[in-house]
Amino acid sequence: MSVREGIRQPLAIVLVRPQLGENIGKAARAMLNFGLTDMRLVSPRDGWPNSSAKPAASGADIVLEAVTVYETVAEAIADCGQVLATTVRKRGIPKPVISPAEAAAAIHDLPVCSAILFGPERAGLDAEDVALARAIVTIPINPEFSSINLAQAVILLAYEWSKRAGLAVPTQAEQTDPPASQAELDALVAHLESALVPRGYFYPPDREPSTRRTLRSILTKPAWTAPEIQTLRGIVSALEKKPR
Amino acid sequence: MSVREGIRQPLAIVLVRPQLGENIGKAARAMLNFGLTDMRLVSPRDGWPNSSAKPAASGADIVLEAVTVYETVAEAIADCGQVLATTVRKRGIPKPVISPAEAAAAIHDLPVCSAILFGPERAGLDAEDVALARAIVTIPINPEFSSINLAQAVILLAYEWSKRAGLAVPTQAEQTDPPASQAELDALVAHLESALVPRGYFYPPDREPSTRRTLRSILTKPAWTAPEIQTLRGIVSALEKKPR
Repeated sequence: MSVREGIRQPLAIVLVRPQLGENIGKAARAMLNFGLTDMRLVSPRDGWPNSSAKPAASGADIVLEAVTVYETVAEAIADCGQVLATTVRKRGIPKPVISPAEAAAAIHDLPVCSAILFGPERAGLDAEDVALARAIVTIPINPEFSSINLAQAVILLAYEWSKRAGLAVPTQAEQTDPPASQAELDALVAHLESALVPRGYFYPPDREPSTRRTLRSILTKPAWTAPEIQTLRGIVSALEKKPR
Repeated sequence: MSVREGIRQPLAIVLVRPQLGENIGKAARAMLNFGLTDMRLVSPRDGWPNSSAKPAASGADIVLEAVTVYETVAEAIADCGQVLATTVRKRGIPKPVISPAEAAAAIHDLPVCSAILFGPERAGLDAEDVALARAIVTIPINPEFSSINLAQAVILLAYEWSKRAGLAVPTQAEQTDPPASQAELDALVAHLESALVPRGYFYPPDREPSTRRTLRSILTKPAWTAPEIQTLRGIVSALEKKPR
Protein backbone atom coordinates (compact mmCIF):
# COMPACT_ATOMS: atom_id res chain seq x y z
CA MET A 1 0.00 0.00 0.00
CA SER A 2 1.54 3.22 -1.09
CA VAL A 3 0.76 5.15 2.06
CA ARG A 4 2.97 2.70 3.87
CA GLU A 5 5.63 2.06 1.29
CA GLY A 6 5.94 5.46 -0.24
CA ILE A 7 6.96 7.45 2.80
CA ARG A 8 8.73 6.82 6.04
CA GLN A 9 6.17 6.55 8.83
CA PRO A 10 6.86 9.60 10.91
CA LEU A 11 4.20 9.21 13.56
CA ALA A 12 3.37 6.27 15.82
CA ILE A 13 0.05 6.14 17.64
CA VAL A 14 0.68 4.51 21.03
CA LEU A 15 -2.35 3.19 22.93
CA VAL A 16 -1.36 2.76 26.54
CA ARG A 17 -3.19 -0.05 28.38
CA PRO A 18 -6.24 0.07 26.07
CA GLN A 19 -9.20 -1.78 27.49
CA LEU A 20 -11.52 -2.78 24.63
CA GLY A 21 -10.49 -4.46 21.42
CA GLU A 22 -13.33 -2.61 19.75
CA ASN A 23 -11.69 0.69 20.56
CA ILE A 24 -8.36 -0.51 19.21
CA GLY A 25 -10.14 -1.34 15.95
CA LYS A 26 -11.85 2.03 15.84
CA ALA A 27 -8.58 3.80 16.49
CA ALA A 28 -6.99 1.84 13.62
CA ARG A 29 -9.80 2.95 11.33
CA ALA A 30 -9.37 6.54 12.47
CA MET A 31 -5.64 6.38 11.77
CA LEU A 32 -5.84 4.88 8.31
CA ASN A 33 -8.34 7.50 7.19
CA PHE A 34 -5.52 9.97 7.57
CA GLY A 35 -2.73 7.78 6.28
CA LEU A 36 -1.24 6.59 9.57
CA THR A 37 -0.36 2.90 9.95
CA ASP A 38 2.06 2.58 12.88
CA MET A 39 -0.02 1.54 15.90
CA ARG A 40 1.73 0.41 19.07
CA LEU A 41 0.00 -1.13 22.07
CA VAL A 42 1.34 -1.06 25.61
CA SER A 43 -0.06 -3.84 27.81
CA PRO A 44 -3.50 -4.12 26.19
CA ARG A 45 -5.85 -5.31 28.93
CA ASP A 46 -7.21 -8.26 26.97
CA GLY A 47 -3.97 -9.21 25.25
CA TRP A 48 -3.24 -9.15 21.54
CA PRO A 49 -4.50 -10.15 19.02
CA ASN A 50 -8.04 -9.34 20.09
CA SER A 51 -10.92 -10.64 17.99
CA SER A 52 -13.08 -7.59 18.73
CA ALA A 53 -10.65 -5.28 16.97
CA LYS A 54 -11.06 -6.36 13.35
CA PRO A 55 -14.83 -5.85 12.99
CA ALA A 56 -14.49 -2.37 14.48
CA ALA A 57 -11.66 -1.45 12.14
CA SER A 58 -14.00 -1.49 9.13
CA GLY A 59 -11.29 -2.71 6.81
CA ALA A 60 -8.26 -1.00 8.31
CA ASP A 61 -6.63 -4.43 8.54
CA ILE A 62 -3.27 -3.18 7.40
CA VAL A 63 -3.00 -1.22 10.64
CA LEU A 64 -4.06 -4.10 12.88
CA GLU A 65 -1.75 -6.57 11.15
CA ALA A 66 1.24 -4.33 11.74
CA VAL A 67 0.46 -3.63 15.42
CA THR A 68 3.42 -4.06 17.74
CA VAL A 69 2.96 -4.78 21.44
CA TYR A 70 5.14 -3.68 24.33
CA GLU A 71 5.17 -4.17 28.07
CA THR A 72 6.09 -0.61 28.93
CA VAL A 73 5.63 2.82 27.41
CA ALA A 74 9.40 3.31 27.50
CA GLU A 75 9.91 0.29 25.23
CA ALA A 76 7.16 1.40 22.87
CA ILE A 77 8.72 4.79 22.25
CA ALA A 78 12.42 3.89 22.46
CA ASP A 79 13.07 4.79 18.81
CA CYS A 80 11.11 8.06 18.88
CA GLY A 81 12.72 11.45 19.04
CA GLN A 82 9.55 13.33 19.92
CA VAL A 83 6.94 12.05 22.33
CA LEU A 84 3.66 13.78 23.11
CA ALA A 85 1.03 12.74 25.66
CA THR A 86 -2.66 13.41 25.16
CA THR A 87 -4.74 14.45 28.13
CA VAL A 88 -8.20 15.94 28.19
CA ARG A 89 -7.80 17.64 31.52
CA LYS A 90 -4.96 19.37 33.20
CA ARG A 91 -2.82 17.05 35.20
CA GLY A 92 -0.76 19.54 37.17
CA ILE A 93 2.37 18.31 35.45
CA PRO A 94 4.82 21.04 34.56
CA LYS A 95 5.18 20.44 30.85
CA PRO A 96 4.28 22.55 27.88
CA VAL A 97 0.63 22.15 26.91
CA ILE A 98 -0.05 22.40 23.18
CA SER A 99 -3.04 22.12 20.87
CA PRO A 100 -3.48 19.37 18.27
CA ALA A 101 -2.44 21.81 15.54
CA GLU A 102 0.67 22.77 17.49
CA ALA A 103 1.39 19.07 18.02
CA ALA A 104 1.20 18.51 14.27
CA ALA A 105 3.59 21.39 13.73
CA ALA A 106 6.00 20.09 16.37
CA ILE A 107 6.04 16.68 14.73
CA HIS A 108 6.22 17.99 11.21
CA ASP A 109 9.32 20.06 11.80
CA LEU A 110 11.34 17.13 13.10
CA PRO A 111 13.44 14.76 11.04
CA VAL A 112 12.84 11.94 13.53
CA CYS A 113 9.96 9.61 14.17
CA SER A 114 7.44 10.76 16.73
CA ALA A 115 4.90 9.16 19.02
CA ILE A 116 1.63 10.34 20.50
CA LEU A 117 0.49 8.54 23.65
CA PHE A 118 -3.21 7.90 24.34
CA GLY A 119 -4.30 6.59 27.73
CA PRO A 120 -6.77 3.89 28.72
CA GLU A 121 -10.40 4.63 27.90
CA ARG A 122 -11.56 5.35 31.41
CA ALA A 123 -8.70 6.92 33.27
CA GLY A 124 -6.42 8.38 30.63
CA LEU A 125 -2.66 8.44 30.96
CA ASP A 126 -1.26 8.39 34.46
CA ALA A 127 1.45 10.71 35.71
CA GLU A 128 4.21 8.17 35.03
CA ASP A 129 3.22 7.94 31.37
CA VAL A 130 2.98 11.69 30.96
CA ALA A 131 6.40 12.12 32.54
CA LEU A 132 7.91 10.30 29.54
CA ALA A 133 6.58 12.87 27.09
CA ARG A 134 8.11 16.13 26.10
CA ALA A 135 4.81 17.97 25.91
CA ILE A 136 1.13 17.47 26.62
CA VAL A 137 -1.42 17.71 23.82
CA THR A 138 -4.85 18.83 24.94
CA ILE A 139 -7.85 18.99 22.66
CA PRO A 140 -9.60 22.27 23.50
CA ILE A 141 -13.06 21.24 24.43
CA ASN A 142 -16.36 22.43 25.90
CA PRO A 143 -15.59 22.81 29.61
CA GLU A 144 -19.15 21.83 30.43
CA PHE A 145 -19.18 18.66 28.38
CA SER A 146 -15.92 16.84 27.79
CA SER A 147 -16.69 13.44 26.39
CA ILE A 148 -14.17 12.53 23.74
CA ASN A 149 -13.62 8.81 23.29
CA LEU A 150 -10.36 7.16 22.35
CA ALA A 151 -11.00 6.84 18.62
CA GLN A 152 -12.23 10.44 18.44
CA ALA A 153 -9.09 11.71 20.13
CA VAL A 154 -7.04 9.65 17.69
CA ILE A 155 -8.96 10.92 14.68
CA LEU A 156 -8.56 14.57 15.68
CA LEU A 157 -4.81 14.20 16.14
CA ALA A 158 -4.46 12.13 12.95
CA TYR A 159 -6.49 14.73 11.06
CA GLU A 160 -4.29 17.58 12.25
CA TRP A 161 -1.21 15.54 11.42
CA SER A 162 -2.46 14.85 7.90
CA LYS A 163 -3.24 18.51 7.30
CA ARG A 164 0.40 19.30 7.97
CA ALA A 165 1.71 16.30 6.16
CA GLY A 166 -0.36 17.12 3.10
CA LEU A 167 0.68 20.74 3.11
CA ALA A 168 4.25 19.72 3.57
CA VAL A 169 6.43 21.77 1.31
CA PRO A 170 9.89 20.32 1.70
CA THR A 171 11.71 23.12 3.44
CA GLN A 172 15.34 23.23 4.36
CA ALA A 173 15.41 22.52 8.07
CA GLU A 174 18.07 24.24 10.12
CA GLN A 175 21.17 22.15 9.98
CA THR A 176 20.86 21.05 13.58
CA ASP A 177 21.01 17.63 15.14
CA PRO A 178 17.62 16.08 15.82
CA PRO A 179 16.57 15.43 19.40
CA ALA A 180 18.09 12.28 20.80
CA SER A 181 15.90 9.20 20.78
CA GLN A 182 13.84 8.33 23.81
CA ALA A 183 16.17 5.39 24.46
CA GLU A 184 19.17 7.71 24.70
CA LEU A 185 17.30 9.98 27.07
CA ASP A 186 16.25 6.97 29.15
CA ALA A 187 19.87 5.89 29.36
CA LEU A 188 20.84 9.31 30.70
CA VAL A 189 18.05 9.22 33.29
CA ALA A 190 19.05 5.70 34.32
CA HIS A 191 22.71 6.64 34.53
CA LEU A 192 21.97 9.66 36.70
CA GLU A 193 19.65 7.70 38.94
CA SER A 194 22.20 4.94 39.39
CA ALA A 195 24.71 7.57 40.53
CA LEU A 196 22.21 9.19 42.87
CA VAL A 197 20.89 6.07 44.59
CA PRO A 198 24.09 5.10 46.47
CA ARG A 199 24.50 8.72 47.51
CA GLY A 200 21.18 8.70 49.34
CA TYR A 201 19.51 11.23 47.02
CA PHE A 202 16.14 9.49 46.93
CA TYR A 203 15.25 10.01 50.55
CA PRO A 204 12.77 9.67 52.20
CA PRO A 205 11.60 6.54 50.35
CA ASP A 206 7.98 7.60 50.13
CA ARG A 207 9.01 10.66 48.11
CA GLU A 208 11.05 8.58 45.69
CA PRO A 209 8.46 8.14 42.92
CA SER A 210 7.66 11.82 42.73
CA THR A 211 11.34 12.78 42.95
CA ARG A 212 12.09 10.47 40.05
CA ARG A 213 9.25 12.00 38.08
CA THR A 214 10.52 15.50 38.75
CA LEU A 215 13.99 14.47 37.67
CA ARG A 216 12.71 12.95 34.44
CA SER A 217 10.52 15.91 33.79
CA ILE A 218 13.48 18.30 34.11
CA LEU A 219 15.63 16.20 31.81
CA THR A 220 12.89 15.72 29.23
CA LYS A 221 12.29 19.41 28.82
CA PRO A 222 15.23 20.43 26.64
CA ALA A 223 14.99 17.84 23.86
CA TRP A 224 18.75 17.48 23.89
CA THR A 225 20.52 16.04 20.87
CA ALA A 226 22.44 12.77 20.97
CA PRO A 227 25.84 14.53 21.33
CA GLU A 228 24.44 16.65 24.15
CA ILE A 229 23.17 13.57 25.94
CA GLN A 230 26.64 12.03 25.53
CA THR A 231 28.20 15.11 27.08
CA LEU A 232 25.81 14.97 30.01
CA ARG A 233 26.58 11.33 30.58
CA GLY A 234 30.27 12.26 30.59
CA ILE A 235 29.49 14.84 33.25
CA VAL A 236 27.63 12.33 35.41
CA SER A 237 30.51 9.86 35.02
CA ALA A 238 32.95 12.56 36.08
CA LEU A 239 30.89 13.45 39.11
CA GLU A 240 30.81 9.86 40.19
CA LYS A 241 34.57 9.94 40.63
CA LYS A 242 36.27 10.94 43.83
CA PRO A 243 37.80 14.41 43.71
CA ARG A 244 41.53 14.38 43.30
CA MET B 1 -26.37 26.03 29.97
CA SER B 2 -24.06 28.86 29.25
CA VAL B 3 -22.86 27.58 25.91
CA ARG B 4 -26.41 27.89 24.76
CA GLU B 5 -27.55 30.94 26.62
CA GLY B 6 -24.41 33.00 26.42
CA ILE B 7 -24.20 33.37 22.68
CA ARG B 8 -26.38 33.10 19.65
CA GLN B 9 -26.01 29.67 18.10
CA PRO B 10 -24.26 30.42 14.85
CA LEU B 11 -24.05 26.93 13.44
CA ALA B 12 -26.71 24.28 12.94
CA ILE B 13 -25.74 20.66 12.28
CA VAL B 14 -28.30 19.22 9.86
CA LEU B 15 -28.51 15.43 9.57
CA VAL B 16 -30.29 14.60 6.34
CA ARG B 17 -32.27 11.34 6.42
CA PRO B 18 -30.14 9.78 9.17
CA GLN B 19 -30.68 6.04 9.52
CA LEU B 20 -29.68 4.94 13.00
CA GLY B 21 -30.74 6.59 16.25
CA GLU B 22 -27.38 5.54 17.67
CA ASN B 23 -25.60 7.70 15.10
CA ILE B 24 -27.83 10.67 15.92
CA GLY B 25 -26.83 10.26 19.57
CA LYS B 26 -23.14 9.99 18.70
CA ALA B 27 -23.37 13.08 16.53
CA ALA B 28 -25.00 14.97 19.43
CA ARG B 29 -22.15 13.94 21.69
CA ALA B 30 -19.62 15.03 19.08
CA MET B 31 -21.34 18.43 18.75
CA LEU B 32 -21.58 19.22 22.43
CA ASN B 33 -17.90 18.47 22.96
CA PHE B 34 -17.24 21.50 20.83
CA GLY B 35 -20.05 23.66 22.13
CA LEU B 36 -22.64 23.11 19.39
CA THR B 37 -26.24 22.45 20.41
CA ASP B 38 -28.42 23.15 17.38
CA MET B 39 -29.12 19.78 15.75
CA ARG B 40 -31.74 19.54 13.01
CA LEU B 41 -33.01 16.30 11.49
CA VAL B 42 -34.51 15.98 8.04
CA SER B 43 -36.79 12.93 7.65
CA PRO B 44 -35.01 10.62 10.08
CA ARG B 45 -35.62 7.08 8.84
CA ASP B 46 -36.97 5.76 12.16
CA GLY B 47 -38.82 8.92 13.18
CA TRP B 48 -38.13 11.10 16.18
CA PRO B 49 -37.69 10.76 19.13
CA ASN B 50 -35.63 7.59 18.79
CA SER B 51 -34.83 5.61 21.93
CA SER B 52 -31.44 4.52 20.58
CA ALA B 53 -30.17 8.07 20.49
CA LYS B 54 -29.95 8.90 24.17
CA PRO B 55 -27.64 6.05 25.28
CA ALA B 56 -25.25 6.87 22.43
CA ALA B 57 -25.20 10.56 23.34
CA SER B 58 -23.32 9.85 26.59
CA GLY B 59 -25.01 12.69 28.40
CA ALA B 60 -25.38 15.18 25.57
CA ASP B 61 -29.10 15.29 26.37
CA ILE B 62 -29.33 19.03 25.95
CA VAL B 63 -28.68 18.55 22.24
CA LEU B 64 -31.21 15.74 21.80
CA GLU B 65 -33.90 17.59 23.73
CA ALA B 66 -33.58 20.60 21.47
CA VAL B 67 -33.59 18.65 18.21
CA THR B 68 -35.95 20.03 15.58
CA VAL B 69 -37.32 17.86 12.81
CA TYR B 70 -38.15 18.86 9.22
CA GLU B 71 -39.57 17.16 6.17
CA THR B 72 -37.20 18.75 3.70
CA VAL B 73 -33.71 20.16 3.70
CA ALA B 74 -35.06 23.45 2.41
CA GLU B 75 -37.27 23.83 5.49
CA ALA B 76 -34.46 22.87 7.85
CA ILE B 77 -32.17 25.60 6.56
CA ALA B 78 -34.72 28.30 5.84
CA ASP B 79 -33.28 30.66 8.48
CA CYS B 80 -29.63 30.09 7.56
CA GLY B 81 -27.55 32.55 5.60
CA GLN B 82 -24.77 30.14 4.82
CA VAL B 83 -25.22 26.49 3.93
CA LEU B 84 -22.43 23.99 3.37
CA ALA B 85 -22.76 20.36 2.30
CA THR B 86 -20.32 17.68 3.44
CA THR B 87 -19.22 15.02 1.02
CA VAL B 88 -16.34 12.62 1.28
CA ARG B 89 -15.93 12.20 -2.42
CA LYS B 90 -16.28 14.57 -5.28
CA ARG B 91 -19.77 14.62 -6.70
CA GLY B 92 -19.15 16.31 -9.99
CA ILE B 93 -21.28 19.24 -8.90
CA PRO B 94 -20.02 22.64 -9.96
CA LYS B 95 -19.63 24.25 -6.54
CA PRO B 96 -16.64 25.46 -4.63
CA VAL B 97 -15.01 22.65 -2.65
CA ILE B 98 -13.50 23.76 0.64
CA SER B 99 -11.70 22.13 3.56
CA PRO B 100 -13.13 21.92 7.08
CA ALA B 101 -10.84 24.76 8.16
CA GLU B 102 -12.03 26.89 5.25
CA ALA B 103 -15.61 26.02 6.16
CA ALA B 104 -15.02 27.24 9.70
CA ALA B 105 -13.58 30.45 8.33
CA ALA B 106 -16.50 30.93 5.96
CA ILE B 107 -18.94 30.52 8.82
CA HIS B 108 -17.01 32.60 11.25
CA ASP B 109 -16.85 35.64 9.04
CA LEU B 110 -20.59 35.82 8.54
CA PRO B 111 -23.09 37.70 10.69
CA VAL B 112 -25.80 35.13 9.99
CA CYS B 113 -26.53 31.65 11.22
CA SER B 114 -25.08 28.83 9.19
CA ALA B 115 -25.83 25.18 8.55
CA ILE B 116 -23.71 22.22 7.62
CA LEU B 117 -25.50 19.32 5.95
CA PHE B 118 -24.51 15.70 6.59
CA GLY B 119 -25.98 12.92 4.48
CA PRO B 120 -27.37 9.49 5.40
CA GLU B 121 -24.81 7.01 6.76
CA ARG B 122 -24.60 4.82 3.72
CA ALA B 123 -25.08 6.99 0.69
CA GLY B 124 -24.22 10.52 1.76
CA LEU B 125 -26.03 13.57 0.48
CA ASP B 126 -27.65 13.28 -2.90
CA ALA B 127 -27.32 15.81 -5.68
CA GLU B 128 -30.58 17.56 -4.76
CA ASP B 129 -29.33 18.20 -1.23
CA VAL B 130 -25.95 19.41 -2.36
CA ALA B 131 -27.59 21.77 -4.83
CA LEU B 132 -29.03 23.70 -1.87
CA ALA B 133 -25.60 24.46 -0.46
CA ARG B 134 -23.30 27.29 -1.40
CA ALA B 135 -20.18 25.19 -1.14
CA ILE B 136 -19.08 21.62 -0.57
CA VAL B 137 -16.94 20.74 2.43
CA THR B 138 -14.68 17.78 1.87
CA ILE B 139 -12.54 16.25 4.58
CA PRO B 140 -9.18 15.52 2.97
CA ILE B 141 -8.68 11.86 3.48
CA ASN B 142 -6.52 8.88 2.54
CA PRO B 143 -7.60 8.13 -1.05
CA GLU B 144 -6.95 4.45 -0.42
CA PHE B 145 -9.04 4.21 2.73
CA SER B 146 -11.95 6.57 3.16
CA SER B 147 -14.07 5.37 6.01
CA ILE B 148 -15.33 8.30 8.04
CA ASN B 149 -18.58 7.69 9.85
CA LEU B 150 -21.27 10.27 10.49
CA ALA B 151 -20.24 11.18 14.05
CA GLN B 152 -16.60 11.44 13.01
CA ALA B 153 -17.44 13.80 10.17
CA VAL B 154 -19.50 15.86 12.61
CA ILE B 155 -16.72 15.95 15.20
CA LEU B 156 -14.11 17.09 12.69
CA LEU B 157 -16.31 19.92 11.45
CA ALA B 158 -17.36 20.87 14.98
CA TYR B 159 -13.73 20.84 16.07
CA GLU B 160 -12.69 23.18 13.26
CA TRP B 161 -15.64 25.43 14.01
CA SER B 162 -14.73 25.59 17.70
CA LYS B 163 -11.13 26.48 16.91
CA ARG B 164 -12.41 29.54 15.09
CA ALA B 165 -15.17 30.33 17.50
CA GLY B 166 -12.87 30.12 20.46
CA LEU B 167 -15.75 28.63 22.39
CA ALA B 168 -13.80 25.72 23.67
CA VAL B 169 -11.39 26.23 26.48
CA PRO B 170 -8.28 27.70 25.02
CA THR B 171 -5.27 25.51 25.42
CA GLN B 172 -3.79 26.99 28.50
CA ALA B 173 -0.24 26.65 29.48
CA GLU B 174 0.07 24.99 32.83
CA GLN B 175 0.59 27.47 35.60
CA THR B 176 4.31 27.01 35.39
CA ASP B 177 7.01 29.13 36.88
CA PRO B 178 8.87 31.45 34.55
CA PRO B 179 12.39 30.55 33.52
CA ALA B 180 14.92 31.14 36.27
CA SER B 181 16.97 34.29 36.16
CA GLN B 182 20.33 34.34 34.46
CA ALA B 183 21.97 34.66 37.88
CA GLU B 184 20.35 31.44 39.04
CA LEU B 185 21.45 29.68 35.89
CA ASP B 186 24.97 31.07 36.33
CA ALA B 187 25.01 29.74 39.88
CA LEU B 188 24.10 26.27 38.61
CA VAL B 189 26.80 26.40 35.94
CA ALA B 190 29.34 27.57 38.52
CA HIS B 191 28.28 24.91 40.99
CA LEU B 192 28.59 22.18 38.38
CA GLU B 193 31.95 23.47 37.18
CA SER B 194 33.29 23.62 40.72
CA ALA B 195 32.30 19.98 41.16
CA LEU B 196 33.84 18.97 37.84
CA VAL B 197 37.19 20.76 38.17
CA PRO B 198 38.62 18.65 41.03
CA ARG B 199 37.48 15.51 39.22
CA GLY B 200 39.57 16.28 36.19
CA TYR B 201 36.67 16.84 33.83
CA PHE B 202 38.18 19.80 32.02
CA TYR B 203 41.07 18.01 30.41
CA PRO B 204 43.09 18.66 28.32
CA PRO B 205 43.48 22.31 29.39
CA ASP B 206 43.42 23.70 25.86
CA ARG B 207 39.94 22.24 25.37
CA GLU B 208 38.65 23.80 28.56
CA PRO B 209 37.11 26.98 27.08
CA SER B 210 35.13 25.09 24.45
CA THR B 211 34.07 22.41 26.93
CA ARG B 212 32.77 25.10 29.26
CA ARG B 213 30.93 26.69 26.37
CA THR B 214 29.31 23.38 25.43
CA LEU B 215 28.30 22.82 29.03
CA ARG B 216 26.73 26.24 29.31
CA SER B 217 25.00 25.83 26.00
CA ILE B 218 23.45 22.54 27.07
CA LEU B 219 22.27 23.99 30.37
CA THR B 220 20.89 27.14 28.79
CA LYS B 221 18.71 25.28 26.32
CA PRO B 222 15.82 24.20 28.56
CA ALA B 223 14.99 27.52 30.21
CA TRP B 224 14.52 25.76 33.52
CA THR B 225 12.50 27.40 36.26
CA ALA B 226 13.98 28.46 39.58
CA PRO B 227 12.66 25.34 41.40
CA GLU B 228 14.09 23.17 38.64
CA ILE B 229 17.46 24.85 38.99
CA GLN B 230 17.29 24.23 42.73
CA THR B 231 16.58 20.56 42.12
CA LEU B 232 19.52 20.32 39.75
CA ARG B 233 21.81 21.95 42.28
CA GLY B 234 20.60 19.40 44.81
CA ILE B 235 21.54 16.69 42.33
CA VAL B 236 25.01 18.10 41.82
CA SER B 237 25.47 18.36 45.60
CA ALA B 238 24.39 14.75 45.98
CA LEU B 239 26.81 13.61 43.29
CA GLU B 240 29.66 15.38 45.04
CA LYS B 241 29.20 13.06 47.99
CA LYS B 242 30.96 9.76 48.31
CA PRO B 243 28.71 6.79 47.68
CA ARG B 244 27.67 5.03 50.85
